[in-house]
Amino acid sequence: MSVSRYQQLAQTLRRQIDAQVWLPGDKLPSLRESCKQSGLSLMTVLQAYQLLESQGDIVSRPQSGYYVAPRQQVRRNHRTPQSLHTAEQIDVNDAIFDILKAAQDPDIVPLGSAFPDPTLFPQPRLARSLASAVRRMSAHSATANLPPGNEELRRCIAQRYAQQGIEVAPDEIVITSGAMESLGLSLQVLTEPGDWVAIESPAFYGALQAIERRQLKAVAIPTDAGEGINLDALEEALETYPIKACWLMANFQNPLGCSLSVEKKQRLVAILQQHNVALIEDDVYAELYFSADRPMPLKMSDHRQQILHCSSFSKCLAPGFRVGWVAAGQYAERIQRLQLMSTLSASVPVQLALADFLQQGGYDTHLRRIRRQLEQRQMAMYHAICSLFPVSVSVVLPDGGYFLWLDLGEQVDAVRLYQRALAKGVSIAPGTLFAVEDRYRHCIRLNTSFEWDSRCEQAIKLLAELVADEVKRAD
Amino acid sequence: MSVSRYQQLAQTLRRQIDAQVWLPGDKLPSLRESCKQSGLSLMTVLQAYQLLESQGDIVSRPQSGYYVAPRQQVRRNHRTPQSLHTAEQIDVNDAIFDILKAAQDPDIVPLGSAFPDPTLFPQPRLARSLASAVRRMSAHSATANLPPGNEELRRCIAQRYAQQGIEVAPDEIVITSGAMESLGLSLQVLTEPGDWVAIESPAFYGALQAIERRQLKAVAIPTDAGEGINLDALEEALETYPIKACWLMANFQNPLGCSLSVEKKQRLVAILQQHNVALIEDDVYAELYFSADRPMPLKMSDHRQQILHCSSFSKCLAPGFRVGWVAAGQYAERIQRLQLMSTLSASVPVQLALADFLQQGGYDTHLRRIRRQLEQRQMAMYHAICSLFPVSVSVVLPDGGYFLWLDLGEQVDAVRLYQRALAKGVSIAPGTLFAVEDRYRHCIRLNTSFEWDSRCEQAIKLLAELVADEVKRAD
Repeated sequence: MSVSRYQQLAQTLRRQIDAQVWLPGDKLPSLRESCKQSGLSLMTVLQAYQLLESQGDIVSRPQSGYYVAPRQQVRRNHRTPQSLHTAEQIDVNDAIFDILKAAQDPDIVPLGSAFPDPTLFPQPRLARSLASAVRRMSAHSATANLPPGNEELRRCIAQRYAQQGIEVAPDEIVITSGAMESLGLSLQVLTEPGDWVAIESPAFYGALQAIERRQLKAVAIPTDAGEGINLDALEEALETYPIKACWLMANFQNPLGCSLSVEKKQRLVAILQQHNVALIEDDVYAELYFSADRPMPLKMSDHRQQILHCSSFSKCLAPGFRVGWVAAGQYAERIQRLQLMSTLSASVPVQLALADFLQQGGYDTHLRRIRRQLEQRQMAMYHAICSLFPVSVSVVLPDGGYFLWLDLGEQVDAVRLYQRALAKGVSIAPGTLFAVEDRYRHCIRLNTSFEWDSRCEQAIKLLAELVADEVKRAD
Repeated sequence: MSVSRYQQLAQTLRRQIDAQVWLPGDKLPSLRESCKQSGLSLMTVLQAYQLLESQGDIVSRPQSGYYVAPRQQVRRNHRTPQSLHTAEQIDVNDAIFDILKAAQDPDIVPLGSAFPDPTLFPQPRLARSLASAVRRMSAHSATANLPPGNEELRRCIAQRYAQQGIEVAPDEIVITSGAMESLGLSLQVLTEPGDWVAIESPAFYGALQAIERRQLKAVAIPTDAGEGINLDALEEALETYPIKACWLMANFQNPLGCSLSVEKKQRLVAILQQHNVALIEDDVYAELYFSADRPMPLKMSDHRQQILHCSSFSKCLAPGFRVGWVAAGQYAERIQRLQLMSTLSASVPVQLALADFLQQGGYDTHLRRIRRQLEQRQMAMYHAICSLFPVSVSVVLPDGGYFLWLDLGEQVDAVRLYQRALAKGVSIAPGTLFAVEDRYRHCIRLNTSFEWDSRCEQAIKLLAELVADEVKRAD
């Protein structure tokens, strides 16, 4: 029987090596450990190891143990860009997932990505702040920074509100794992399943997903790439449906890039107040403005404490940290309770590091630099599009952020374009991602945050050719 | 008009100082900044600052600017322990929130807390790993560590499964923001609102909350502090209700502390397989065993890939990091999709730090030390309870973890006891937190992880006196 047992053990180990539990060069558990764990005799385990050694899977090193054999360096399988299930009915989930995954693949130009170019951020200074935070961490940091989150960080954020003339007390702020969590928690606080909410059309796909998860009914308010949300349509919706909350972006809307004028912001807040409807304001791109002044959030006019202002450091300072917040006013405590029962709290070391970074100063210097870079890159891509794409393609130039929204004309199928471009190593975000209804099949969103180099230029050229080809086909 | 304007500005600033947006000693925005932001003239702003200065709220420092005046050091308001809304009907949410908050209050002995004593963890070594991780972070770390999460960390976790003889490939593991997130995502993947799930009674309150949030129907299976879950009752439930998933703890169950025998674990998995029901296994305390060997998870016998094994580093290594995982097998990709749309990913620096810590070795040495400490502390509190509490009180000694579950006898109201104890600076977790039905009103859970010093001893003495008093009252 011991023959089959050692073969079984060898098979198990080989499966683990194949599954990359152990990589080439990794030390395997010692014979003694393996005996203890498997309950097999030393002889059986030794036979298994020797079998694997004879087959070249592992090697023994005298006085050290057994190691996974070095292999011919196999190039890691890059995920072949996958076509969507059908061209007929795009599954928003699948497409988003593919696009987010493509952002991880160095072989794909990620123009469909929602992430800003990672090289834009002050990596060394963030590292210093993290190192400094670590030195100041105590045993009690874990419980001391439970929701609502690190006190210094909340105070720094409140000070930035104060500098804009907006009164938000540190106690009204809850630190979260990125803005996505603060938006989701806000939606949970304001609604019950079955409730109606108003959103923009097109809208951030994260909003669509959150609404679906919460089993809400949504009214999509037409939103224009130049003018932003149609307020007459919003008023009509508020009069027609028992809407419990709105979820909107007033600055550099995703995917359109548009911002509301000051007058329109005031009218929007007045309309919501008149109907006594709470607002979830997604304002994650607000720091990335190109004009002289920071655009004001809708929160500015929140005299009734009905606006939950959500933002983060993920787009403008530290993408991988996953730290966001919501200025939740009267809802702050209910947000905390939900957070305690879903993720407990944001990670402590990164909260401390961001507080350190903000206290050290230099955040505004960084922001000025990144704004200038983003503006230059946006302009470069914009000009390339204007000169290379068919004249039938329309695009509005936003005043901040890093998205361009292209209307390719009714005859172009953006989903097919997405598939064709991905097959050639370029990802784009088809308009179908940004609405439940099939209204933006001829639109795409492009990410302009990347350095305008020949790779980017080639990608835009490729897209221009594909679009021209789609237009020609349709004729 | 300028009189009222400068007074208004002064009022705004004073409100911000009161709300601790600016702390004593903080530098206020410069006159120039303040002009720009408020749109007021330099003279108006200066008048406002001078008014505040004359009232002692702020001080000016030549060539530097205005600062919030140092105040008589007011002792920060410690939250007065609050009584529950009514003694009649305890709101689980409120009580949990109060207890978690009490864990942050240094004036309260947090025996009701779910958090392990923060001084148990290798703070300096974690700090070194974080510093080392920071040095290795690149611009691309943010996107490279999107779900399923850091590859090295997933491999380290897979290796620990392998060392237990459990086959889990790194690709089946998804890194999350603590186990709470992995449990919640697992529940979302396995169920739709309205579905039935089976849970233990009593159960971890996080499970009750997640089930409520997902709008599920729950069957609570009687679970004994000595023997664990009643499998006959589970079988009956599976035959009676269309149960879609179970959510259970087989090792050091929270709140009971009990573990299932090997035979019972095998029978449990067989029953679930027979009924084709998926299992969410919450195994966060498994590393904290006092016996010779690590207890096996139910996942061990998961031949049908129907067990989602959730765990974390929060109880045994790094509480504030908020890093957990789920070994989700065939469900791994669906978990990732949900995560991308809720928190996007776990924080990157802490993922890298934990990978570094695990690769450096020494985790098992740390675990051996913490297990010994927890066992000693548990024994000390247990002996004190046995000698001080009325003989009518029963308590079972678990073989790991850091909870003791006390049955105080039917005549004791644990909610009133909780209120009385909190008023004297000791928090406990009343049994009512751990079930939807009002079945454990005479039980409490105590946290045994704290150093057994005179403070802890006094707290247990106080509880013993209060319990004796409650018993006497009832007679």
